[in-house]
Order: sequence, then C-alpha cells, then structure tokens
Amino acid sequence: MAIVLGPNQYGKAENRVVRTQRDTPRHEIRDINVSSALRGDFSAAHLEGDQSAVLPTDTQKNTAYAYAKEQGLTSIEDYGLALARHYVDDVEPVQGARIEIEEFAWERVSIDGVEHDHTWVRRGQEVRLAAVTVEGTADAQQTWVTGGLKDLVILKSTGSEFHGFLTDPYTTLVPTTDRVMATSLVATWHYSSLDVDWEAAYAGVKNVLVRTFAEVHSLALQQTLFQMGKRVLEAYGFIAEVRLSAPNKHHFLYDLGRFGLENANEVFHADDRPYGLIQASVLRDDAPAAGPAWDAYTGLV
Amino acid sequence: MAIVLGPNQYGKAENRVVRTQRDTPRHEIRDINVSSALRGDFSAAHLEGDQSAVLPTDTQKNTAYAYAKEQGLTSIEDYGLALARHYVDDVEPVQGARIEIEEFAWERVSIDGVEHDHTWVRRGQEVRLAAVTVEGTADAQQTWVTGGLKDLVILKSTGSEFHGFLTDPYTTLVPTTDRVMATSLVATWHYSSLDVDWEAAYAGVKNVLVRTFAEVHSLALQQTLFQMGKRVLEAYGFIAEVRLSAPNKHHFLYDLGRFGLENANEVFHADDRPYGLIQASVLRDDAPAAGPAWDAYTGLV
Amino acid sequence: MAIVLGPNQYGKAENRVVRTQRDTPRHEIRDINVSSALRGDFSAAHLEGDQSAVLPTDTQKNTAYAYAKEQGLTSIEDYGLALARHYVDDVEPVQGARIEIEEFAWERVSIDGVEHDHTWVRRGQEVRLAAVTVEGTADAQQTWVTGGLKDLVILKSTGSEFHGFLTDPYTTLVPTTDRVMATSLVATWHYSSLDVDWEAAYAGVKNVLVRTFAEVHSLALQQTLFQMGKRVLEAYGFIAEVRLSAPNKHHFLYDLGRFGLENANEVFHADDRPYGLIQASVLRDDAPAAGPAWDAYTGLV
Amino acid sequence: MAIVLGPNQYGKAENRVVRTQRDTPRHEIRDINVSSALRGDFSAAHLEGDQSAVLPTDTQKNTAYAYAKEQGLTSIEDYGLALARHYVDDVEPVQGARIEIEEFAWERVSIDGVEHDHTWVRRGQEVRLAAVTVEGTADAQQTWVTGGLKDLVILKSTGSEFHGFLTDPYTTLVPTTDRVMATSLVATWHYSSLDVDWEAAYAGVKNVLVRTFAEVHSLALQQTLFQMGKRVLEAYGFIAEVRLSAPNKHHFLYDLGRFGLENANEVFHADDRPYGLIQASVLRDDAPAAGPAWDAYTGLV
Repeated sequence: MAIVLGPNQYGKAENRVVRTQRDTPRHEIRDINVSSALRGDFSAAHLEGDQSAVLPTDTQKNTAYAYAKEQGLTSIEDYGLALARHYVDDVEPVQGARIEIEEFAWERVSIDGVEHDHTWVRRGQEVRLAAVTVEGTADAQQTWVTGGLKDLVILKSTGSEFHGFLTDPYTTLVPTTDRVMATSLVATWHYSSLDVDWEAAYAGVKNVLVRTFAEVHSLALQQTLFQMGKRVLEAYGFIAEVRLSAPNKHHFLYDLGRFGLENANEVFHADDRPYGLIQASVLRDDAPAAGPAWDAYTGLV
Repeated sequence: MAIVLGPNQYGKAENRVVRTQRDTPRHEIRDINVSSALRGDFSAAHLEGDQSAVLPTDTQKNTAYAYAKEQGLTSIEDYGLALARHYVDDVEPVQGARIEIEEFAWERVSIDGVEHDHTWVRRGQEVRLAAVTVEGTADAQQTWVTGGLKDLVILKSTGSEFHGFLTDPYTTLVPTTDRVMATSLVATWHYSSLDVDWEAAYAGVKNVLVRTFAEVHSLALQQTLFQMGKRVLEAYGFIAEVRLSAPNKHHFLYDLGRFGLENANEVFHADDRPYGLIQASVLRDDAPAAGPAWDAYTGLV
Repeated sequence: MAIVLGPNQYGKAENRVVRTQRDTPRHEIRDINVSSALRGDFSAAHLEGDQSAVLPTDTQKNTAYAYAKEQGLTSIEDYGLALARHYVDDVEPVQGARIEIEEFAWERVSIDGVEHDHTWVRRGQEVRLAAVTVEGTADAQQTWVTGGLKDLVILKSTGSEFHGFLTDPYTTLVPTTDRVMATSLVATWHYSSLDVDWEAAYAGVKNVLVRTFAEVHSLALQQTLFQMGKRVLEAYGFIAEVRLSAPNKHHFLYDLGRFGLENANEVFHADDRPYGLIQASVLRDDAPAAGPAWDAYTGLV
Repeated sequence: MAIVLGPNQYGKAENRVVRTQRDTPRHEIRDINVSSALRGDFSAAHLEGDQSAVLPTDTQKNTAYAYAKEQGLTSIEDYGLALARHYVDDVEPVQGARIEIEEFAWERVSIDGVEHDHTWVRRGQEVRLAAVTVEGTADAQQTWVTGGLKDLVILKSTGSEFHGFLTDPYTTLVPTTDRVMATSLVATWHYSSLDVDWEAAYAGVKNVLVRTFAEVHSLALQQTLFQMGKRVLEAYGFIAEVRLSAPNKHHFLYDLGRFGLENANEVFHADDRPYGLIQASVLRDDAPAAGPAWDAYTGLV
C-alpha cells in the first residue's frame, strides 16, 4: 500500500476585475469576480516542493487583468474562453483550465429620462455566473461552458399549494391550498454549443425562469422547478441541461388570532433557518455527457 | 463613590415582518426588518431582577406583527410612528420608544409587458431606512423621524479628480485628474415635519442624491457629499439635516505597462480593504436640535 | 428528443439543534447545524405535483430535533448515521439519505481553575464537519462517512519559501526564501470503517494537520498540504482519503523603505482578495471508491 | 436661512496590519484591523473641493503600517495613542483624531506539549477592541481611551429565570424558572487613567465578565449585565464606565411532546432572528464625562 496524490488543482480565486470602455463619451462598464484554476501533472510540487511546472497564482492574477484589456470584456463567456484556452494552449504543463466568473450588473443613472454617460448604480439583483472548462490541445481540445445566476429572490403571494404529502410519526405540518412561495434561486445551465449570443441567451433564460415561476400554479416547489427547467430547454435548443437549487424561504403565517385579529394570508414571519432546499436537474434525454462542466473550483457554479 | 446604572434600553431586534395586501387580485407587498427599543426607568430589573415594569421582548415581537395588520404597513414611517406611540402611550413604564426599520423593495414581475398580480423579484438595490423616536406623553410628547438608505452602490468612471492635497513624510499618493469614484452610500435625513408624503419624499431624496453624484464634477468625495446633502435640503423644506457616510470603494488602476499594454483608465482592481471613509452632516443653520433622532439602537440608522 | 428529470434531492437545511445533557449537576452541551437530504424516485412531485411520496422537509426538521433526544447527540457521526439509516430504512420511497453536520465547539468556563458546571464560551476556532450517506436497505445497504473541519486559520511567520516557479510574459512575482504562510484550512477525510472512536479520531486528525503545518519546512503550500494528508493517512489506518482546500491568505510585505524604515519580514498587509487557492486529494492507492461520500448537498463538506 | 456643513470626519478604515517580532527564534505576532479618522476644519474640501488641508487617506494607510514598525505594536492601546497623537501633534490642520482597533488573537501551536516558535492558530473567540480619541495640542490636549471586546458567545444551560414581567394584550410569553441564557457579548469600557497595564487589564476585565455571567443566578439578562459591569468597576479603579450590549440569543425548547418524547430542557432550537437586545451602561457616580470616548467612526466600538 502506498499513499499517493489524487486529483488536484490550483489557481487564483476572486480577482475583482472592473473594465470600462471609454472610446466615446458614453462609457461602458463590466464588473466581475473571476477565478482561474489549472489542472495537470503538478505532482513534483506536491511531492518534492519543485515549482518548475507551476505558473504562480500571482501570474494568473496578472493575466486576468491583462486579458480584460487584450481580449476585452464584452461577455463573460468569451472572456472566460479566452483565458481558459490561453492556459491550456500557451502554458506547457497545463492540461486543463477552469475559469469561474461572477458578474455584478450596473444600471445607468437616468436624469430627467436621459441616461448618464458615465454614472451607474449597482443593480443589486441577481449575480450572473459563467464557468468555462477547457481540456486538451489542438484537435483533442474539448470545451464546456455553463451559464447561470444566483441570489435571484422571487416570491409569489398566492398560487401555491402544498398537500397530499407522505406522513410519518414525526409529521405535524398542516396541508395548505394557499401559501407564500419564495426562493433565492440558483440556476446553472450547460450550453451544448459555443456559437451562442451569450448576452441574449442570458437575458432570455432569466426571463423564462422568472416568467415560469409566476405563471405555473404550484403544487410543490419541485413541480415549479421542473417547469422552469423544461421551458428553458424548450426555448433554447443550444442548452442541454439546467440545474436548479432552490431554498424554500419560509414565510410563516403569524398567529394573530391570539390577539383577536384575523390573518388571511396577510402577515408573515420571514424565517432564516432552517429552510427547505430542493435541487434538481432537467435535461434532454439525448444531452451530451456533462463531463467536467459542473466540477466546481470555488463553489461559484 | 457608588456604582450606578447609566442609560439603558431594551427591545426586540430584527423582526422580519412581511405584509401582503390581497383585497383585490392585484396583491401588494411590504417586506421589513423592524426593531423596537423601550426606554424608561427599568432600574428594578437591572438592580434587583424585578421584571414588573418590563414588557417582554417577546411581546414586542407579537406587537410588531399585530400592528402590520391592525395599523397596516403602507409606509414604514407611519407604521413606526404607530408602534412608537403605542409603547409610550399605552405601556405605563415606557417613557421613550425607538423604532428602527429596514425595508427591502420588490419589483413586480412583468410578462410581455404586463405586470403580474402576485409575483415579485427582490429589487436588491439599496435598503430603505426609517427611525422613529417618541418621548413623553400628551402635550409633552415629542417625536423625531429620520429617513434614509444604505447599500446604494454608485460609481462614475470619469468626472472625478483628486490633487492638491496636504503631504507629509508618509505621503506617496500620486495626484490624479481622472479617476473612478465609487461608494456604497449610507444617507439618513431628519424630517422637521410629520406632515410628509413619506413615499414621495423617499423617492425624491434618492433621486436627488443619485443625480447629484452624477452631475457634480468632483474634486473630492467630500465636495460631492456636501453637494448631495445641500441639494436635498434645497429641494425639501421639511428636511432639516442630512447625514452621509461614504466609503471610498477604491478602484485601483492595474499596472499593465509591465506587459506592454496601455491602461488608459480601462482596467481596475476593485479592492476590499482598507477603504477611505468620509462622513459629513449638512444642515440648515436654523435646524431644530436633532435630539435623540440619531441615537441608534441596532446600528441600522 | 424528450425533456426529462435528472438527479434530484430535497431536504431541510441548517437545523440549529442544541442538545444539553443534565443528568448530573455537571451539564454537557453539543451545538450543531444539521441538514438532511433525501434521494429516491420523486418524479411524481416534479412532473405532476403529486406529493404522495414526499416526506415534508418540515418532518425532517422535527426528526432532527427528536433524534437529538431519542438517539442522543454524543458524536455527530453516530447521530448522522442514525438519521440517515432512519430515512432509508423507515420511509419507503427513500432510497438514499445524506446528512451533513457542522459542529460548533464550546469550552467550559473556568473560575479560579475550577471548571463551571453549566457555563461555556463558544470556542470559536474551527468548525467540525461530518457527512453521512446511506444508500439501499438490508444486505444491499452501503454507508459512507466523512469527517472534516473548516475555518481553521493557521499561520507560520517563517519556514516557508517560494521560488523556482514557471514564468511566462505575465509573471512579475519575486521569488522568496522567507515568507509568511497562512491559510484558512478546509479538510475532509473519508473513513473506510464505521468502527471508529469518532471523538478521538477527530482530535487526532486535527492534531496531525496542525502539527504537520508547523513542522514541515515549506517550499510550496502544495508540498505542505500533501504532507498533512500523508501523515493523517499514516497515523489512521481507518482513513482512506484526505481532501484539502487551502486558500493562500496572502500577507504582503509592506514597503516601508519609502519612509526610511527597514522591514525585515515584520510588517505585513493581510489582503482579502484575490487569494491563491490550492486543492488536493491524498489517498491510499488501494482506497475503496469514494462513491457518493463527497456528493455535497449544502456545500458543507 | 443657509445650508451649512455640520460635524464631519474622514480617514482610512480597516487597515489589516499584521506585525511580527523576530529578534529571537521565538517569534511574536499581533494581528489588527485599524481605522483612523481625522477631525478639524476641513470645510474648504467640502465647500470648494480644496484639498490643501486634507492629508490623504492613503497617507493614513501608510502611517498605520509605518507606525507598527516605528512605534511597535505591543499593545493596541499604546499603538493607538501613538497614532492619534501623531495626527494631532504633527499634522497642522488636524484638531482631533480617532483611532479604532480590532485585534484578532492567535494561540501558539503546541507539539507534544512544547510551544512552537513561529506557528499559530487563530484563537477565533472574542475580538478585542480599543478606541483612542485625542483632541487639542500641548497643555490643552485631552485623551480618551476605551477598551472592549465583541463576539464573545457565552451560554449557561441553567441558572436563569424569567417571570413576573409586565403583561399587556399582546403578551403570550410563558414565565419560566429554568431556561438557557446565551448572548454574543459586546462590552466596552472607559479608562479614566492612561497609566494602565493594558494587557493585564484586558485579560482581567474579560475574566470578570465571564466569571460573573457564570456565577450570577439570573432573574433577567438585565440583572446579569449590571452585575458584570459592577464587578468590573469594583475590580479596576481605573475604569470609569462599562457599556454592555447583549443580544439574547434565544434557545427555544423544541416541542417533542408531539412525538411522545419528554424534553426536560435538553433539546433546543437556536434561533437567528428576531432576538432580544439589552443595552446598559454601568458607571461610577463620580465618573468623568465620557466626552467623545464613544463617538464611533466605523461602528467598531
């Protein structure tokens, strides 16, 4: 029996790159948190402390900022592809690279209906996600791209039921035909093509997710999530799979009867913990294997 | 020499009250985090453990939820006034009450341009604040109301200079005539009247703050903040004082010259810590004394 | 082509269970955050909103608290095993269960060298982790247990070098033979046996990890991590694999030469982001397959 | 009526200074988060954007690191005093300076009972606090120093009652003669002398606070807090006032009777929000005026 090195990766996490474009008086801005991880044979570093195959994480930091200039930053998927391919193609010991990106959206300030050229307010709503994985070189090169979002907090004040569930001796929940349903959605999706208008795809997927949450009369959060994933796949042929993780942000009806007050689903306590947590994948039955598409580095995607 | 009890207060912090209105198919929602603190002679509780003058914090929790039904929750200032007056007027040992509220805004989901009746997405931008303090009863009763906001992240990519500053042997900063200026603004303001349309006032003040940040060509964050406060006071005669606390969220130009790349204010590192922190009050020279308007309980306001 | 439901699980996350033992005047306390996830054929809930196979997450909450009484809570691994087996053995539709636990340690208050019977201070150092996965019933039942820790912040002020690394056009890092090395360690390990003294094993593994970090003269964080994992495996035959995730918490030497001051590795800026992030597995070459041991539900392990 | 500038201050917040001493093989380490604020007539900066009186916050950052070398960092109070006096004495426009410090404690790693020379684990328990305010120069100079701690989580599993409280129509709380009492203590104290052994004083005050929490049979958190403050004042003649802020971290008895289980104060749900929050000052009746001792800049103290 011997003790051996197993799977490993290393990189620079959470580079906070802000990129403006100022070729004209009307500036543009992109604001991201990017992490890069390199995979390959780094056993000498682990076993002997020999760094000769190790490109420093400091270099990866420099590269993240330099590529925001050299390659531009007009969509996080393209930027991530450029970075991942660079490491695999240009740095000899690197056999695979994983780039994970969070993007924070800004909205242009409007003054009397006119958009300001160079001032923005952070939108603050959901965080956009992307992850790019590239493995191998030349003809053997394979690429996986996922998009996503997190922290999209969405709520409906009716149109949600929960009853008919399995019971056991520990079950005390009262069935309901009308409840508040709310979640802080995490959704990621695997693109089966690289020939995608990333900006339009992101906006479109978000729109389908939100719209479906609103439109589906819900018998369970599970049912709503499946419909959300299904409708994304129906709308976008270049998406192979959608993964959803949805905490059930409980809104408990507050017992006001003790004070002689009726509470017809009007006053709730929004509780923190514990919370229900539903996770599901929705995919095409002919979807290509996900491979390392969802093998996370920092937990972003 | 004796050891004595000094100023004290107690209450229930961070009640997460969500209130819907569902009288018609088009529902409404308000989502708040409310804290109540009571002030008065509670020395028996401290000195002898005698609770006979102490209304439990659990009761304050119940009251926060009950008042969302009884009094409604159509503006946080009115709701806060109702709660504060209740404690001072109805609970004998209470001589003063402080209500602090954070409000989280939701925006209605739109489907094909039509607003949905009962589904919303958390806006996620700034958090609205209010604090109400009531002291004394009947003719001796005094009331202070402050409004505010926090977490409003705003940035301009040009139109900001910083030079001509004082130097000493520890000064290494390079003057600049063009930099990114960004902050996560906290602003609070003291209403000198209670006869205010709170919703309109909040929207208006936020608009003035954002607009002024955009419009003022900045020679220093201090200068921008003073103008922001000044224009709020000019626009709203019923506001006596504005207090601003603004972290300078540094965006450092990344040195790309090392890689043969020009960086003409295009690529920045958004740093976390440390950060400059500027705080200032702007007020009318005939402003009434602020009294306990800003004597915080939970640090919300 | 059809759209189908892929892998899914659901449960109640972050139940904050505190269990005291008070059979004698000297009380004991265990303080945990426990999440349970159920796996099985829940397609009816997703596809049709039919809950008849779904044990509510509310029931899982009740069960977490009830089992702290019924089964006791003397080690998180045994408690997790009892919960996981209960779901798989007693709830018919459940084919697999995953229990993830964080434990917060308390230390007894000492007064004049005498330990107090019923007062503790939260230790506050690392958080202990465990995850139990059970699949199948009767003879086909399989069980995986991992232990772990997170948030163990450890630093050495010398005995760490970093040089001889690969360079490319983006490399600007200066090699060093003496630097501060610090991390906030996450380590998890897979037990190949269930016949383990869990409390002793945890204390022992933590001790080996800390001791090895101190004793190894480091040429790279990678090398230190491999040694940490290797020595755990050498010391504990019932551990098959160790996984380590270590952010390099950078301590940058502050340039005091600008002020005529020498800085011989004495004054550092502890930076927040970005950070190097090294991840590695160390295992026996005859280790059993990890199976779902590390298939996380909440990201705890 | 004119609009004028009110009270203002500015500085550099949250400088993360780490200072090692390595004169001998046995190193020492101090790890702090320090903020400095300057007060004076900075109206030209606010009103006209004229920075000629403004020492940049970047300079304050440099100074914080430089002083960790020049003045050393053997106690945060002495380091804070040196910084504050420097700004007031050496920088002409500065009339007052406020230095706020958080300190994170490290404990030396022990290997087989022998302390390691240069490896530590972050203790992780409470955060130590200090704030220094200096106003005026030469004979007119006044100085205030407060010490403190935060995040000290302490719990007793019995020895706490709560009954006999005031009731009103919203009161539903059940009185109890035996409950868990827990808090995450914030305590700050005002030193009436500068001739203090700061390290011994801090350790002593913490010890009195913890011991008193344990020893007092509690009829209310208020009563416990008053005793904690009183005993600190009795023990340390050079402390004039103690301020305590204590969230009541509720541990709710879980209703296990529904499952046929007895719960004799053994199984609790540790709730997050809302929480009771008790704040009180305990002082000598001849205490000097606190002046600006507690006028916070960053909310640290």
